[in-house]
Amino acid sequence: MTAANACPLCEQEGGEVLWRNTELRVVHTDEETLYPGLCRVIWNAHVAEFSDLTATQRHMLMDVVTCVEHVMRTMLAPTKMNLASLGNQVPHLHWHLIPRYSDDAHFPQPIWSPALRPVAPALLEARQAQAQKLRTGIMQALASLAI
Amino acid sequence: MTAANACPLCEQEGGEVLWRNTELRVVHTDEETLYPGLCRVIWNAHVAEFSDLTATQRHMLMDVVTCVEHVMRTMLAPTKMNLASLGNQVPHLHWHLIPRYSDDAHFPQPIWSPALRPVAPALLEARQAQAQKLRTGIMQALASLAI
Repeated sequence: MTAANACPLCEQEGGEVLWRNTELRVVHTDEETLYPGLCRVIWNAHVAEFSDLTATQRHMLMDVVTCVEHVMRTMLAPTKMNLASLGNQVPHLHWHLIPRYSDDAHFPQPIWSPALRPVAPALLEARQAQAQKLRTGIMQALASLAI
Repeated sequence: MTAANACPLCEQEGGEVLWRNTELRVVHTDEETLYPGLCRVIWNAHVAEFSDLTATQRHMLMDVVTCVEHVMRTMLAPTKMNLASLGNQVPHLHWHLIPRYSDDAHFPQPIWSPALRPVAPALLEARQAQAQKLRTGIMQALASLAI
């Protein structure tokens, strides 16, 4: 990738947009089939690194990340939340917010490590159903966020 | 782990302390032998999730993360910086700051995925030498951070 116009997060939303302002968007994705509810907070402009932002931009971005994390914790009661900004493959600033459970496929390892166990389809379906409600909860919480 | 007094980040520093204030500490670790220069920013109190902090605490924490990331970028010129707060094994709030290079063991995958290639010992030694200078640079930068 050599230019912003070859960047998938410049060309596409990167998931179902739950909320956006001029600087960033919050998306829900079902790409990660083992992790229903996984959300991303994506900076709209093509910026590679967190420290490329101004302090005001960073604080606003992390206020949104925190709001989404808080809703996930309240509605999903995960064992742990995981936050990560990697971007090795897509160097366009985005945060992954991943709800983790002690019985998920990789716990306590990161989701990028080899899977440790299978996850029963019924459990995944139940979490997918929760994720549908989560999206509404996140949209409501972000709508009332004073930014 | 059921209590703060069984937590390794309550009992130990978690690496060589480069800087600290009453709320947090910045440590350098050579535990991750494939990733010289890897630093952690650790909240001193036993708090599990980022969203457990107040807005003022979060902003200060990420200002320090950003300062350390900026020094790493300036002194190491990594291909990409990776930031992550996972804590599945040690649920005591800490951020990993990982300099990544296109020729490191896992790039472009996360460092927790299976290794993709060996790294020549001479390259690791050169990066270990850089990491020694990085520590001084981080200490200087944090000393002048107005927090």
